[in-house]
Amino acid sequence: MKFLSCTSSDDIVERTFDLDGIPGVLWTPPIGSEGAPLILIGHPGGQHKLAPGPVARARHYVTRYGFNAAAIDAPGHGDRRRSAEDQRWVDAMMAARQAGESLAPSITALNVSLAERAVPEWRATIDALSGLSEIGDVTIGYGGLTLGSAIGIPLAAVEPRIRAAVFGGVFTYPELFDAARQVTIPVQVLLPWDDREIDRQTGLELFDALASPEKTMHVTTGGHHQVPAFETDDSARFYVRHLRRR
Amino acid sequence: MKFLSCTSSDDIVERTFDLDGIPGVLWTPPIGSEGAPLILIGHPGGQHKLAPGPVARARHYVTRYGFNAAAIDAPGHGDRRRSAEDQRWVDAMMAARQAGESLAPSITALNVSLAERAVPEWRATIDALSGLSEIGDVTIGYGGLTLGSAIGIPLAAVEPRIRAAVFGGVFTYPELFDAARQVTIPVQVLLPWDDREIDRQTGLELFDALASPEKTMHVTTGGHHQVPAFETDDSARFYVRHLRRR
Repeated sequence: MKFLSCTSSDDIVERTFDLDGIPGVLWTPPIGSEGAPLILIGHPGGQHKLAPGPVARARHYVTRYGFNAAAIDAPGHGDRRRSAEDQRWVDAMMAARQAGESLAPSITALNVSLAERAVPEWRATIDALSGLSEIGDVTIGYGGLTLGSAIGIPLAAVEPRIRAAVFGGVFTYPELFDAARQVTIPVQVLLPWDDREIDRQTGLELFDALASPEKTMHVTTGGHHQVPAFETDDSARFYVRHLRRR
Repeated sequence: MKFLSCTSSDDIVERTFDLDGIPGVLWTPPIGSEGAPLILIGHPGGQHKLAPGPVARARHYVTRYGFNAAAIDAPGHGDRRRSAEDQRWVDAMMAARQAGESLAPSITALNVSLAERAVPEWRATIDALSGLSEIGDVTIGYGGLTLGSAIGIPLAAVEPRIRAAVFGGVFTYPELFDAARQVTIPVQVLLPWDDREIDRQTGLELFDALASPEKTMHVTTGGHHQVPAFETDDSARFYVRHLRRR
């Protein structure tokens, strides 16, 4: 893991890093975080680790709660080149949208493939971050909507170091339901009630599929990507409940 | 309005009162609350104004947030005698339950009638509380599950002084949907996902029916009356968002 840049202000330190070709960013409080939880932030599809949404959430967690936060670019996103195969799926998605056909086959193929590649990358990132003296053996949470859930749900299904997660707003397919049925950690699901891209019924079914004994779903008005700002703090409080050591 | 008793501790003052035959209770911080919001608490069916649930919520709002809180006994509940007609509906409900028949006709008749009587009682209570020098012209919120929603939804539909409300866990019928369609204030709905008494689909339909542009629903695991304790604080934060004057 190689740190590439460091920007620091009164209340947060932002360091970008490279981990064997995975571009990432780590946000920490300026003074020692003393075993504070680490929140992994999965960016939405088409965005990247330093997009306004992930950065705003990271800032909130670090400056208000003293947490650590980290994000990496998903394959083909941000600083990473899109593969020819990914490009074909993206093209197929655009063509389907233009033709008024179902996006399901192309989104499913793309998201399943991205998750297969991203899950081991996140696990390697956890290994590397846990090895830093300023992070160490802390409790870990994950949060990500849309693609961040398409990757995060299979990740939470196999990675026991993730102890609580926020998901939502995600297009569903059988592979994602299979993964959800293996998730047993506490989860908070966000469901935009007026999402015109993703049928609300599939959101309810995904919540139902999660095997977590402790799960909560926050349904809010608004469409895809229109999660109200107060949900960022609700997520932080959810992490506090489940990740802060007593 | 006649105060009947006063109990005070380091962090809360509890005064019971009688308002023309309506037994009520007012909780305030021990030192002036300086225009802090007033939260009206509607108790669940079969309970009363001083049952553990309403008292715990009132304590939380007053001691953690400096709010004022008040509750009254619904007709036929707590210190109030049940009328012969109410008793016939309750008997019909018990008989239906024993016979494995639908409770819908008796619950609907009882709840519609209780709401018709309770709505003007709550409005008179608001008049009386607003007339107290220590309360005055404050912003008002309402919160109540089950019967507290059967009464609170029609109340919020007609009483403009109520500016935000928490509802949930309520048996639904056409009169309640009609009232919900007239509610336009911010609402937070609680939906116990595993409620065996009330079908979750009716909870989703009720959320959908509320005409409020700003509405949020918190779905939690557990059955009827099993709302997790952290939702009390989530409700308080919802009231803060909508009731606290800037």
